[in-house]
Formats: sequence, C-alpha cells, structure tokens
Amino acid sequence: MNHELLTDMYEFSMANGYYLTLSHDKQARFDVFYRKAPDDGSFVISAGLKQVVDEVKNWHFSPDDIAYLKSLKHFSDDFLFYLTEAHNRCSIEALPEGTPVFPQEPFLSITGPLMDVQLLETLILNIINHQSLIATKAWQITSAADNRPVMEFGARRAQGPDAAIYGARAAIIGGCGSTSNVLAAKLFNVPAVGTMAHAWIESFPDELTAFRAWAKIYPDNAALLVDTYDVLQSGVPNAIKVFKELRAAGHEPVGIRIDSGDIAQLAKQARKMMDDAGFPDAKITASNALDAHIIKSLLNQGAPLDNFGIGERLITSSSSPVLSGVYKMAALENKGKWEPKIKISNSREKVTLPGHKQVYRLYDKHDPQHAVADVIALADEQIGSKITAISADVHVTRNKVILTDFIAKPLLQQVLTPDKTATCEANPFVIQRFAKKNLAQLPAATQRLLNPDHFPVYLTKRLVDLQQKLIDEATNM
Amino acid sequence: MNHELLTDMYEFSMANGYYLTLSHDKQARFDVFYRKAPDDGSFVISAGLKQVVDEVKNWHFSPDDIAYLKSLKHFSDDFLFYLTEAHNRCSIEALPEGTPVFPQEPFLSITGPLMDVQLLETLILNIINHQSLIATKAWQITSAADNRPVMEFGARRAQGPDAAIYGARAAIIGGCGSTSNVLAAKLFNVPAVGTMAHAWIESFPDELTAFRAWAKIYPDNAALLVDTYDVLQSGVPNAIKVFKELRAAGHEPVGIRIDSGDIAQLAKQARKMMDDAGFPDAKITASNALDAHIIKSLLNQGAPLDNFGIGERLITSSSSPVLSGVYKMAALENKGKWEPKIKISNSREKVTLPGHKQVYRLYDKHDPQHAVADVIALADEQIGSKITAISADVHVTRNKVILTDFIAKPLLQQVLTPDKTATCEANPFVIQRFAKKNLAQLPAATQRLLNPDHFPVYLTKRLVDLQQKLIDEATNM
Repeated sequence: MNHELLTDMYEFSMANGYYLTLSHDKQARFDVFYRKAPDDGSFVISAGLKQVVDEVKNWHFSPDDIAYLKSLKHFSDDFLFYLTEAHNRCSIEALPEGTPVFPQEPFLSITGPLMDVQLLETLILNIINHQSLIATKAWQITSAADNRPVMEFGARRAQGPDAAIYGARAAIIGGCGSTSNVLAAKLFNVPAVGTMAHAWIESFPDELTAFRAWAKIYPDNAALLVDTYDVLQSGVPNAIKVFKELRAAGHEPVGIRIDSGDIAQLAKQARKMMDDAGFPDAKITASNALDAHIIKSLLNQGAPLDNFGIGERLITSSSSPVLSGVYKMAALENKGKWEPKIKISNSREKVTLPGHKQVYRLYDKHDPQHAVADVIALADEQIGSKITAISADVHVTRNKVILTDFIAKPLLQQVLTPDKTATCEANPFVIQRFAKKNLAQLPAATQRLLNPDHFPVYLTKRLVDLQQKLIDEATNM
Repeated sequence: MNHELLTDMYEFSMANGYYLTLSHDKQARFDVFYRKAPDDGSFVISAGLKQVVDEVKNWHFSPDDIAYLKSLKHFSDDFLFYLTEAHNRCSIEALPEGTPVFPQEPFLSITGPLMDVQLLETLILNIINHQSLIATKAWQITSAADNRPVMEFGARRAQGPDAAIYGARAAIIGGCGSTSNVLAAKLFNVPAVGTMAHAWIESFPDELTAFRAWAKIYPDNAALLVDTYDVLQSGVPNAIKVFKELRAAGHEPVGIRIDSGDIAQLAKQARKMMDDAGFPDAKITASNALDAHIIKSLLNQGAPLDNFGIGERLITSSSSPVLSGVYKMAALENKGKWEPKIKISNSREKVTLPGHKQVYRLYDKHDPQHAVADVIALADEQIGSKITAISADVHVTRNKVILTDFIAKPLLQQVLTPDKTATCEANPFVIQRFAKKNLAQLPAATQRLLNPDHFPVYLTKRLVDLQQKLIDEATNM
C-alpha cells in the first residue's frame, strides 16, 4: 500500500493554500523532536529513519490518489495537476538510527519546498514516533535483562500488522536478539525464533507424548513448554524424561519455557530438578507479560532465568505507549533568503528553537569515550574550544556556562540529498551495535530506569539570543 | 505486503510437526476471546472482522515466502511443498463487527485443518486485538462527548501506518464521525477532515494575514486555529475580524479550533467574544491530548465545546493500550469425530471453555429492546424457554440460576465458508449504527465509564458439566 495519502487532511488543505498563495515553492526547513521521554526516562533511542528515507525517496501520487483528492471537491485543479507531477525534492539530515537523543534535539531536519515538506509531516512523525518508542522500550527491557538474550514475542498484541513488523525491527535496534515474527525476520534478515504453544500439547493425548513427538522432529531444538497442565508436577518431570531419551540418542536438549504462574519460584524449583537430573546446561526461558521492572525484580529474587520472551509490554510500550514527537517549522525562505521561524506558546517548554541547527555531543578531552553534554547550536556557528551556553531545560535557572576541554562531534548527518542519494544504515544489528557504543559513552546515572539523572543539554548563546529576539518580535506584534 | 508470514515462528514449527505426525489435516476449532476489558470496562466493541476475512480468504504462500522458509533449514521439504499448494480451507463464525462482547465470549470461532488454523493464529489475533481495542476506546470517547461530533486526529502518533489506517476505521466503528487520515478516508469511504496547522500561520508575516489568506481560498471552510500566538489577545479577535469580512462577502464562518492551554476557560471566553460579535453559530473545536475523562470534565465545567478532535489517546488507546485476546483450541477431530478440548491452568480464570459454542443475547420477553443477559451454550444445545445456567464470572459463587421470560438471539454468525463465500459488512458507518443499536439495548450501568456494573454472562449447565469433566480427566492424568 503506498502511503502518500497517509497524511492529515489539513496538510492537503494547507498545501493547496500554499500553492494558491504562491508560497509552495519557497524553501522550508522543519525539525522533528520530542519534549518528554517515555516512562519518565531521560532519552529516546532514535529509530525509523530507514523507512522514512525509503518513503520520501519514492514519494509520488498515483492517478488513483489524485482522482480521490479531486473527488473531495476541495482543491484547485491546478494544485492537483501539480501534485500529479510532484516528486520528492527534499533533503534530510538526521541522527543515525540507534542514537540516544534528548528532549528538544532534532532527530531529523527536512529541507525542501514548503508544500513537499508539509505533506510529509504526518507520515514522518508516524514512523519516527512509533519506531523510536519501541526501540527505547526494548532498550529498557534488554538493559534490565542484564545481557541475557531477549526475544521479541509481541506480534499478536501489536497495534496492527505494521506495528508488529516495524516494531520487531525497532526491538532489535533497542537490544533484542531475535523475533518470533517470521515476516519481520525475513524482511530485516534477523533470527526467527519459537518452538511450541499450548495447542501442540493439547493436540496429543498427553503431555509426555507431545514432548516425545516434538523431540523426534526437532531433536536439536527441544525447548519444551512446561506449563500446559502443572509446571512442577507434570511439565518439568516429563521434560526431564524426554531430555534423557534425547541424550541417550546423542542430542543435548535446549531447555524449558515457563509462560504462567509465579516465575521466580517455579524457575528455582525447575532449575534444581533439571540440575539434579544431570541437565545443568538446559536453559530456562520466561515469557509471561514481562516488562523491565518485572525482569529486574525476578533477577533480584535470584530467579535462574536464561532467556526472556517479551510480548505485549514491549511491542506496544504499554507502560508509556506514545512518543509525542512533533514537526515544527524552523526556517522559511523569504525573497531568496532564509528567515528563522519560531512557534511561541504560553507554555515555556513549547516554544520552539528557530533556525538551521546542529547537535553536538561533547566528549571529555581527557577521556574521549565519556560523553559529558550535548549542545544544540545554529548550523553556521563555529564550534571552537570554548562554548558559551545556557541549559536547554526550561525548568532550571538559565545561567550562562562556559564549556571547555571537550571534543565536539556533530550528530546530524545528511541522509538524503535532493537528487535522492540516500546514505542510511539498514541492518538492525549494525544499528544495535552503534546504539550500544553510544549508550556506553553516557553516564550510568542517565541510563537508570527509575529516576534517571538528566544528561546536560545546552543551547549556544547565539541560539538563545535568536530565540529571544523572535519571541520579542512575535509578542510585540 | 502479504501477511502470510506475519506469524510467530512457533506456529510454523508446530505446523511442520503436525504435518510430520500426520495430524495437520485433522479438523480443529479455535476460539478468539478475551478475559479482561481495557480501562476496567465491562465490554469490548468487536472490530477487525472484515480485514480478517479478507486475509483468510486470500491466504496463500508466495514462492518467495517458501524460499525464505526453506532457507531457515528447519522444516521438512514435504511440508514446504504442501505449503506451496495450501489455500484457505477454513470457515469462520463470528460476532458481527460492532457487537458489544463480554469476557470469555468468542468474538470468532475458526474451523478447518489443524495446520491452517494454527498458522492463522498470530495474524487473526493481531487484527482483532488492535481494532477492537480502538473501537472500544472510540466508544468511550464519543460516549463522553455526548453526541457532539468527534474527529479522529491520531495518525502521527499511531503505532505505524497500519495502526493509523485501520485504527481510523475502528474509531468510526466506535462512534467517530470522521478522520483526518486521508488514506483511511479513501479506503473506507468516510469523511476526511482538517483545516490548518500552526505552520500555516507561521508561513505568513502575521496571524491576521494568514487567516485572511485562508478565508479567501476556503470562504466556506473557515475553521481558524486561534492558539498560535495568544488565543484571547490575538487569535479570537483576528478570527472575528475575518468572520466579519467573510459575512460581508456572503459567507458564514465555520468557527475556531483551540489546541492548547486551559480549554475550559479559553472556550468560555472565546464563546462570549464570538457571541458578542454576532457569531453565535460559529463552532468551537477542542483538540489537545483529550480522552474520555477530560472531555467529561470539560463538559461538566460547562465548556461550550461543539466538536472534538482526538489524537494519540484514541489512536493508541493510551490509557490501556493492549487488548489481550487469545486463540484457544476448543475442539479437535479424532478418528472422524469431534473431541472437545480444554486448556487448564492453576489460575481459574484461565481455564478455557471446551467444544463448539454459541453465544446468545437474551432480551426481556416483555421489553424486547432490553438485553438482560448473555448465555454461552454448546452449539448443539436447544435453547428453549428455560435455561439452567451458572455465572461465567469465576469470581462469584457459582450457584445455578434458572433463566426464563427471554427471547434468545444467537450472536455468532457464519461469515466465511470453506468455499470462500464471505458475508461480512464492510462499511464502518453501517457497523457504527449496528453498534449504537446494540449498545442502546444494554443497561446504562453497564456502559458507565467508571466502575461499570458487569452485565450478567452465564454458561449453560451442559457447558459447565463438560468443562468440569475435562478438568477432572486432565488433572487425574
């Protein structure tokens, strides 16, 4: 399904208006950013860029789309003819997928004719908001699992097919090692995992027969689901019988999966039973409505869990299911020159940052693997060895600080040029490694799941002065 | 994108196992049902059936799908060859979309060869869980809005493109009158709505110029966004100026939209300003992070709001973003005869209802527009004028009751036959009307948003006896 019409109606109303007021071809620059991280966290893991770039690159309206728009009797014929011929002329700068990004920092800045940029708002936000949300939740969960493998199991509870497919990719970016979703595994070339459901057991006269049938077909993939009837009375004893038969035939069993009940207690007793029976390497997988805090609690109780399968609470980010990224005009061409633009608001934190910007991550000059702060600057500023800056957090007293002894690395990179040259990593495991490297450079306190310390993000004095000038102009208007 | 592989890996592992143990062609019947309504509600509005039927009807594997499965080196060649030829042979009985459905009642029962039915689990759950969740949330919100029009505005915060598209359809089913999502509007033939964003205002030198430009292009669609700078100091006064100019030119303005700030106070003052200026018919639309309880509160405060535009809290059902519908085996063929099947559990409410079932809604014989209870029965039971039944709620004392003086209406209807004849309503407004009719038959207390009274759902004595027999057999095993 092509997504050119996956656009709020008001974008088309405005685009028609821009066309009729002859402003559609003015160059415009919009930023995508967010104001509040999910789950009271301190950052978001950026994701979704690859799909955005693919959509923008191939953006054009089909004759059927145009016929539909014409049927609404709301748009001028000239505008619709113009749309028929329209192809993407936008360029995109963005943070690479897998970058930890803080509030107010642009994930992505898009530059192009005002009309084109406006018509892409809804789709770009939809993709970036969704995938960054799930990547961030996957980071929380895999971080709580403390290097134990986490499998993404959520397809049946995802909010529609795309949420299952692209959510699985985002889950890999955030740290998962595999997915149960075969289509996502195929599309993104990642491992598909999963053995049996309760229905397998129920389709046989009894549990032992079901386990034996499985072991015969998959002698090297015997991960047996032990909670269909009773984990400790039936499931684990039957599994151990089959494990012994497997070993006698020259195969080592994989282990068991527990999907209900008190996981902490069941896992401890199952571990002891398997150890006593001579299967200390058989793994225990847990998979019942888990989230980061439950995993932490299970591990704190000493539950001997080796793997986690995480469903609905990952694939919907159910504890915080919305990332409210926005898409705001930063600059607009006027008579051939760029003019910075601002959206002001009675709410101080909703006032936008005007102009073409760049985000720098500052590393300690004496310990370059250690990030110390981010700085949002105007794109044409020279970042020397000293920066005069003001906190980007509108809730703190806004004193000037002088930043020194850093190495500054610009984060926004060109990923799509107007001639449609795209440079953007596709492989979710490459992106996962990039994310892990970037996370390792942040302070541990910033990565705490509860009450994280906020990483310092600054604005340069020039950016703050420009913002204040535009606020003054708008409010004296 | 075809969705045959949008299936958990374990379904394929089991399907291959069924094939190799020669049980793949046994007839099986699975039920889709849920145990707990979102937001502590008492029911769910069923949705998603049309898409399920379309997917099942067209279900087949492409050569590319088969090549991918082969590359996993996990499945037998015979099984993969069998899949190459496989077409849907399932039949589906279901509640029509728009039916209020209570815990444990089958939304849908699917019957067909075990392998086919197993391979459809993930996709069917994904679609039904998502769309029923959003339809239910839309019902909550439109019910709180008390007959004022509600527009679905969530595309940019939906969990991926499909969540925006099918979520918009579900929102219409649940009671919304229109959507901002142009693609959804096209696909489902529903109204697309929306006027301007802040970017329109910002692209002009000042607000008044922006409003005037809009009114010139859309003289009969002047719904002006008044909160770019300051609602009462700038937005409403400028809107009134333009309204007067429009009226002088023979057009009536539509009204204003407020998207930030204290909506209750701003709306009251804006209303007074527009009334005093001679525009008592100009409407006020509110659209900032609204949900059912906020709408109720605004209306209780007397906020003079005429329309609502609802975004993220509707399209993600953010206060309760998961409907945990499950897909459980109810019966399986054994030597040419159906055997009822059960999934038992230490948790009483997780024990399933075995066998082929039908759901009846009972209406008061003396007041047939008044539903009094639901009864889940075995499909081959004769429902006469008297039913011996037991509450389906496992948390109440399970006394027998005798139900009399009712008219019983079966709810599960055949919607897809094995020869692929589908009968299933597509038009979301027809489904919305059906939902409204069904809701009007339920007690008001069942429809309360906070602490609703639970509608009585019963099981027939025969069904309870069968369930107990199978529990006894499984636990003596």
